[in-house]
Amino acid sequence: MRLDVQLLPQPGASDVAVVIDVLRMTTTASLLLDRGLDRLFVVAEVDDARVLAKAEGALLLGERENRPLPGFDGGNSPLEYLNRELAGKTAVLSTSNGSRAVGLAADAEHLLLGAIVNAAAVAKRALGLAHRKITLVCAGTAGLPSLDDAVAAACIARELSALEPSLAPSDSAKLCLRALQASPDLFESLRTSAHGRALEGDGYGEDLRFAAKLNLLTAVPKRLGPALFGRA
Amino acid sequence: MRLDVQLLPQPGASDVAVVIDVLRMTTTASLLLDRGLDRLFVVAEVDDARVLAKAEGALLLGERENRPLPGFDGGNSPLEYLNRELAGKTAVLSTSNGSRAVGLAADAEHLLLGAIVNAAAVAKRALGLAHRKITLVCAGTAGLPSLDDAVAAACIARELSALEPSLAPSDSAKLCLRALQASPDLFESLRTSAHGRALEGDGYGEDLRFAAKLNLLTAVPKRLGPALFGRA
Repeated sequence: MRLDVQLLPQPGASDVAVVIDVLRMTTTASLLLDRGLDRLFVVAEVDDARVLAKAEGALLLGERENRPLPGFDGGNSPLEYLNRELAGKTAVLSTSNGSRAVGLAADAEHLLLGAIVNAAAVAKRALGLAHRKITLVCAGTAGLPSLDDAVAAACIARELSALEPSLAPSDSAKLCLRALQASPDLFESLRTSAHGRALEGDGYGEDLRFAAKLNLLTAVPKRLGPALFGRA
Repeated sequence: MRLDVQLLPQPGASDVAVVIDVLRMTTTASLLLDRGLDRLFVVAEVDDARVLAKAEGALLLGERENRPLPGFDGGNSPLEYLNRELAGKTAVLSTSNGSRAVGLAADAEHLLLGAIVNAAAVAKRALGLAHRKITLVCAGTAGLPSLDDAVAAACIARELSALEPSLAPSDSAKLCLRALQASPDLFESLRTSAHGRALEGDGYGEDLRFAAKLNLLTAVPKRLGPALFGRA
C-alpha cells in the first residue's frame, strides 16, 4: 500500500483521500461531528452556502479571511462549538482553502477530513477503506503549501505507518515526516506557520492551541454524498 | 528579504531563482563549469539539442530515463566529466526534469543553477543579486515533489540563513529546513528518494555519492541568455 502527501491539492484518483485544512476547517468539522452534528455540508461559495442552509434548515457556518461572515450562525473557530450540543442537527460550512481542496479531491473513492485532533482515528479509518493508495491532501493557504497542513499530514502519516509498517511513503510524505521528527511540538509548528501567525494576529491564538491537541477526538468526517459529510 | 522554496516549478517572477535538479542536471552543470566549460546551453527537447550542438560546434550531452542518448558525446552523470578538461568549450545539455524547470523559472530577473556540491557558493551569489526575494525552484521528478531536490534546497537555504539571518523563510522553506535537520546525512537522503533509488537500480549509485558532497565546488551556473549559462 502506498502513501502520498499532496502539499497542494491536485486532481487525480485515489482509493482514499484525506483532506487536511488544520487551521481550521477540518479541525472544526471534526469537532462539529464529535459534538453530535448529524450532517455537514462543505461548500466553497458563500452564496451557495446561504441557499443550501435555507433549503436544509441548517446552521450556516463559515469564514472569509479568518472572520465570521455577516448573517451566519457561527464562524470557523472550533472553540465556538466546544460546548454546543449539536445532536441531530445539520450545518453548512463555507471556508476558503478547505472547501476548495474538498472539490479538487472529489475523484477519490472515499473522502475523509483529517486534522491533528483526530489523526489516529483518521489513520485507522483510512486503512480500513484503502486497497492500494492513501493520499493526504493538504489544502495549503492561498495557493501555497503551508507548514500547518504539512505537519498535520505528518501526524496522520505517522499513525498510518505505526498501524501498517509496510506502507510505502512517497518523497513528499517522507519530507513531512522528517519535518515533524525535527520539530515534534505541534503547537509551536502551528504558531510558526504563516497561517498560524495570521490567526494569532487576528486574535485566534487559542484556536491553534486546540488544533494542536493530538488525538483528542475520535470523530472522522466521511463523505456521504457530493459536499455532504457525516461520521465515518 | 524573503526566501521561498517551490517543491515543484511554478511560473512567477522573482529577483533570483535557483533551479535545483540535484539528481543530476544541476550537479552535472556545476561540475561542467568547474572543469572550465565556457558556455552551457540547457535545452528540454532532444531534437533542439542536436540542432543547437551542431550549429554551435558544441558537445552534445544529456539523458532520457537516466541513460545517455544515442549519438551524444556524453550522458548526465557527473562522474563522466570529473577528469575532463573543458576549458573554452561549449556544451548543450538536455535532460528531462531540470530543463523543464529552467523554462518555468524563466521570468526570474536572475537565474542560477544550484545543487548540494555548490550550495554555499550559490547562496553567496544569490544574496549578492537579490533585493526582495530568492526562490529555490525544485525540479521534482516526473511532476511530483522529490526528496532529493527538497534536501538540496534545504542545504542552500541553510547557507542563505547563515549568511543573512534576517532572511524570512516561507512555510515550504521551513518544511525543507526541518527535514534536513532531522536527517542531516545527505547521501542517505539522496538514496532514500524515489529518483535516487531508481538511479541506484540503473547502476548510477556513485553519482549519488558525488551529488551529496556538500560545498565541493565553487562554480555557479548563471543564465547569460535564453537557455544559456556560464560561470556567475
